[in-house]
Amino acid sequence: MTTKSFKVERLVRFRDCDPAGIVFYPRYFEMVNDVVEDWFREALGYDFHHIHVELKLGTPTVHLEVLFKRPSMIGDMLTFWLTVADLGNSSVRVRIHARCGDELRFSVTPTLVHTDMRRVPPGSLPWPEAVRARMLPFVESEDDADAVRGWDWS
Amino acid sequence: MTTKSFKVERLVRFRDCDPAGIVFYPRYFEMVNDVVEDWFREALGYDFHHIHVELKLGTPTVHLEVLFKRPSMIGDMLTFWLTVADLGNSSVRVRIHARCGDELRFSVTPTLVHTDMRRVPPGSLPWPEAVRARMLPFVESEDDADAVRGWDWS
Amino acid sequence: MTTKSFKVERLVRFRDCDPAGIVFYPRYFEMVNDVVEDWFREALGYDFHHIHVELKLGTPTVHLEVLFKRPSMIGDMLTFWLTVADLGNSSVRVRIHARCGDELRFSVTPTLVHTDMRRVPPGSLPWPEAVRARMLPFVESEDDADAVRGWDWS
Amino acid sequence: MTTKSFKVERLVRFRDCDPAGIVFYPRYFEMVNDVVEDWFREALGYDFHHIHVELKLGTPTVHLEVLFKRPSMIGDMLTFWLTVADLGNSSVRVRIHARCGDELRFSVTPTLVHTDMRRVPPGSLPWPEAVRARMLPFVESEDDADAVRGWDWS
Repeated sequence: MTTKSFKVERLVRFRDCDPAGIVFYPRYFEMVNDVVEDWFREALGYDFHHIHVELKLGTPTVHLEVLFKRPSMIGDMLTFWLTVADLGNSSVRVRIHARCGDELRFSVTPTLVHTDMRRVPPGSLPWPEAVRARMLPFVESEDDADAVRGWDWS
Repeated sequence: MTTKSFKVERLVRFRDCDPAGIVFYPRYFEMVNDVVEDWFREALGYDFHHIHVELKLGTPTVHLEVLFKRPSMIGDMLTFWLTVADLGNSSVRVRIHARCGDELRFSVTPTLVHTDMRRVPPGSLPWPEAVRARMLPFVESEDDADAVRGWDWS
Repeated sequence: MTTKSFKVERLVRFRDCDPAGIVFYPRYFEMVNDVVEDWFREALGYDFHHIHVELKLGTPTVHLEVLFKRPSMIGDMLTFWLTVADLGNSSVRVRIHARCGDELRFSVTPTLVHTDMRRVPPGSLPWPEAVRARMLPFVESEDDADAVRGWDWS
Repeated sequence: MTTKSFKVERLVRFRDCDPAGIVFYPRYFEMVNDVVEDWFREALGYDFHHIHVELKLGTPTVHLEVLFKRPSMIGDMLTFWLTVADLGNSSVRVRIHARCGDELRFSVTPTLVHTDMRRVPPGSLPWPEAVRARMLPFVESEDDADAVRGWDWS
């Protein structure tokens, strides 16, 4: 069985780039957050307005590892591919690969926790059943395990 | 011999926070970049204006791992502590702990590479000798190894 | 003769919003910059990569006036309409209205100057003839003059 | 009687600058928001955490006019001077001049409205008496009226 991928395209903008002319890496995390937000809304049917404003819940990112393999410049069209590396009871570790054409630009694995923001301190909550069911097809099979290692700035 | 730490304080601002009322994590990376920039200017005598504008070099971040242990809110005063986890010929892996009072908020280990941006593709360059010498006191000894594990959103 | 409008749609994102749950106004200017960037690339055939990276020119914004009439929230779909309020030899004052459905959210009039960034200090340059010709249909006729006055936070 | 000014210093950072090497103007508005936030906390004794988190009020910016007179670069130390151009019952129009040494970089006049965010739609609220009293010394006298006109890119 093949894993489902969630795909988003995004143009690198003037505002994303620094004086060296390449994407300033905190801007990559804004893009990553948008991709996750799109996945929740379009693929999981659980949108951030509903989660944050109506339910007063949240999905904070608690951990991530990222490899910036090659720099990106203004005008590059990036394609983001999202899969699920690990699905927990109230957490999910997603994996996102960003490519320009065939070239890998960066890969990142943010772990999000489904959280009740009304509690002090905020506490984790199990994913709603329907949301969890829609996440399942995105969970990577053994064979997908992607060995992206080492950067390539040479 | 004790390791030297570079310390910066930074107030959490309105603009850093999201609709959940806590710091939006890409803003943490803006703070992290500021801390590294301050370290280069104040402790290493190798400032970003000189590196980027005059020399046309750069110090892109090529990898990082981060653990967001506890959320931060508007008005929190964060203290950042920077040490060097690994010092390479043309790269450095720094470790930054951000605390509010005694509470660890996050820890991150960005790897930067000293890079010649005029080459296509950009290529790594050894650190200038004087810069490398000023980095040495910040290199962690074995005993400092900080075992920060697990987040604590409970 | 009717004025041509350049239209862009943009979803309000989690990252655009502040602890009050509404768009943090500096994020609106990031959107505005994207709209101008799209207009240059798609309607004027003069893209920012070409302007900045290849030609070492720029189009800095030197003045603007903005009225934030009504707040926007995460999930709102904004439509931006761009026209030209004034076209100079080396400058252009654009007018952008952002609406959600029929409701005006904000209107802004940024003035951009076509600039040679290699000169110290940077100096203005006439628009290339072809670019100026493509701007002309967007210049507002007398009748379009839009009297947007007063905010409406009541 | 002389008008009181509120003063803040701020270094231009790598993250503030764009591929042209100068401050990307939406970042100036982040700085402006910080200056206003500091003024509220330090001079008015009415801090944003208290306003937003505890009281569920807000101070949205509803209008501004800005002139970017000269560009700023990484490493520039900017000094911000805040005075009050107009003080209303529930609004305030502040004027901020940002200088590097003696050179004016930009001047901006944001109008903020004291707002009850719990109402739908949000509605204005009079300033608390103590806050208004602390704003009074910052109100410009006739003689201060600052005629900042025209940009100076050429």
